[in-house]
Amino acid sequence: MSHVTLAVARQVLQSQPFSRLIGAELVRYADDGVELQLPVTDEIRQQNGFVHGGVVSYAADNALTFAGGYALGQAVVTSEFKINYVRPALGARLSARAGVVHAGKRQAVCRCDIFCIDADGEKLCAVAQGTITAISEPR
Amino acid sequence: MSHVTLAVARQVLQSQPFSRLIGAELVRYADDGVELQLPVTDEIRQQNGFVHGGVVSYAADNALTFAGGYALGQAVVTSEFKINYVRPALGARLSARAGVVHAGKRQAVCRCDIFCIDADGEKLCAVAQGTITAISEPR
Amino acid sequence: MSHVTLAVARQVLQSQPFSRLIGAELVRYADDGVELQLPVTDEIRQQNGFVHGGVVSYAADNALTFAGGYALGQAVVTSEFKINYVRPALGARLSARAGVVHAGKRQAVCRCDIFCIDADGEKLCAVAQGTITAISEPR
Amino acid sequence: MSHVTLAVARQVLQSQPFSRLIGAELVRYADDGVELQLPVTDEIRQQNGFVHGGVVSYAADNALTFAGGYALGQAVVTSEFKINYVRPALGARLSARAGVVHAGKRQAVCRCDIFCIDADGEKLCAVAQGTITAISEPR
Repeated sequence: MSHVTLAVARQVLQSQPFSRLIGAELVRYADDGVELQLPVTDEIRQQNGFVHGGVVSYAADNALTFAGGYALGQAVVTSEFKINYVRPALGARLSARAGVVHAGKRQAVCRCDIFCIDADGEKLCAVAQGTITAISEPR
Repeated sequence: MSHVTLAVARQVLQSQPFSRLIGAELVRYADDGVELQLPVTDEIRQQNGFVHGGVVSYAADNALTFAGGYALGQAVVTSEFKINYVRPALGARLSARAGVVHAGKRQAVCRCDIFCIDADGEKLCAVAQGTITAISEPR
Repeated sequence: MSHVTLAVARQVLQSQPFSRLIGAELVRYADDGVELQLPVTDEIRQQNGFVHGGVVSYAADNALTFAGGYALGQAVVTSEFKINYVRPALGARLSARAGVVHAGKRQAVCRCDIFCIDADGEKLCAVAQGTITAISEPR
Repeated sequence: MSHVTLAVARQVLQSQPFSRLIGAELVRYADDGVELQLPVTDEIRQQNGFVHGGVVSYAADNALTFAGGYALGQAVVTSEFKINYVRPALGARLSARAGVVHAGKRQAVCRCDIFCIDADGEKLCAVAQGTITAISEPR
């Protein structure tokens, strides 16, 4: 199987209007996992000033998709995932790091840890697990 | 227990900058469930023109939160949820309809169905299930 | 697509040694869903006298599998599921009722409600949601 | 917080009739995680000779509970979990290894890997993630 490069994966991310809207970037796309980051701007907060859980779940969903796509070497979608929020998300940047637990031919099971990063370091704010499916043939 | 009104719940939603960014609205907030809608604009799509899964998961997360908040009558957060995507999300509007399966004093388990709506009707595009927790005391 | 009959589905269940061990039975296998029941014997309890959560999760897993198998009309496995326990499981019988939310050609997303039944009626004790996958071809 | 010893945790497991029925044992209960094992007997199989998914989910549920109980230092229950099956479970023993991702005062989020062990080594057959909740006070 051949993996696309980080540069190509970044083009895919940039071709997602929603990912551009909130400034998401791929900072790693390699054998040991993928990392997606986004800046914590005022626009992505909820009413208490924390990053909206829906944005955290976006980061998880998308990092899982890229991790599964890397492993499967095909165009993929996230079929399902589960997320547990463990701490309110604050800080300067959000980082979602995902890796593959098991990959078959057409499906991969992946996990993701989502961190908040600020000047003092980083803190885990959510964990996710899900299934990524190749879309080259109709299901 | 007393429930806040639809008008008050709408104020809460409007106080979420991210929900304003993507134009989310509460269209129902009642004993038989809550419904959150948002317009399908170009900004919320992924690379194939579908609504980004992360936006669908936002809609699920937030509808679950409001459904749990209604049942618990307190300020709440979504502690965890799971989502299965069943069909690419297209159309004019996205609608997330959530209701309570079981509510204790401090936690509620809720389910959510997410539909795409266009001129021809509506189609189920995802289903979710999760736990909503009161935040009036520290966990 | 053709569905197997309740009698055939019961044979499949009886060919599962673990399902025989705990006395599981299929009481419904039809368009409107499937229902799996099992007696609450002392052997399936945990330390506080409730049905062990692992047995509740077995009931959910298996009811989801049969619901998905009915919809897909093929041999299937549960690929993944999520369960929320909402009440300790007591009573005379456990009933897991599952139905299909969406079925494609090779995968179905299903939901399941698990009830405890005694002389006074029934109570919801858990809810589940998961993916059932056809196994006719290797993944 | 004080943790109970492995010996005490084993007594708790032995006080679960269902865990005795299928021969589960705790082989580790320590800061770096807990491990629950059970023998793969004919009684826990499904129709194709694999360990029934419901038994794999029992192992995940129970290992998650013990991992959360260790971290919280209190009597606990599994509130919810999600499991992805990645490979049919065969072999001589099943091993569920769980650890804590994040622990608050009353809830812990844990992950679990479930392996099949035989003479040739071990293989991952499922992964799980869930929430464990203290039960010392009513929810």
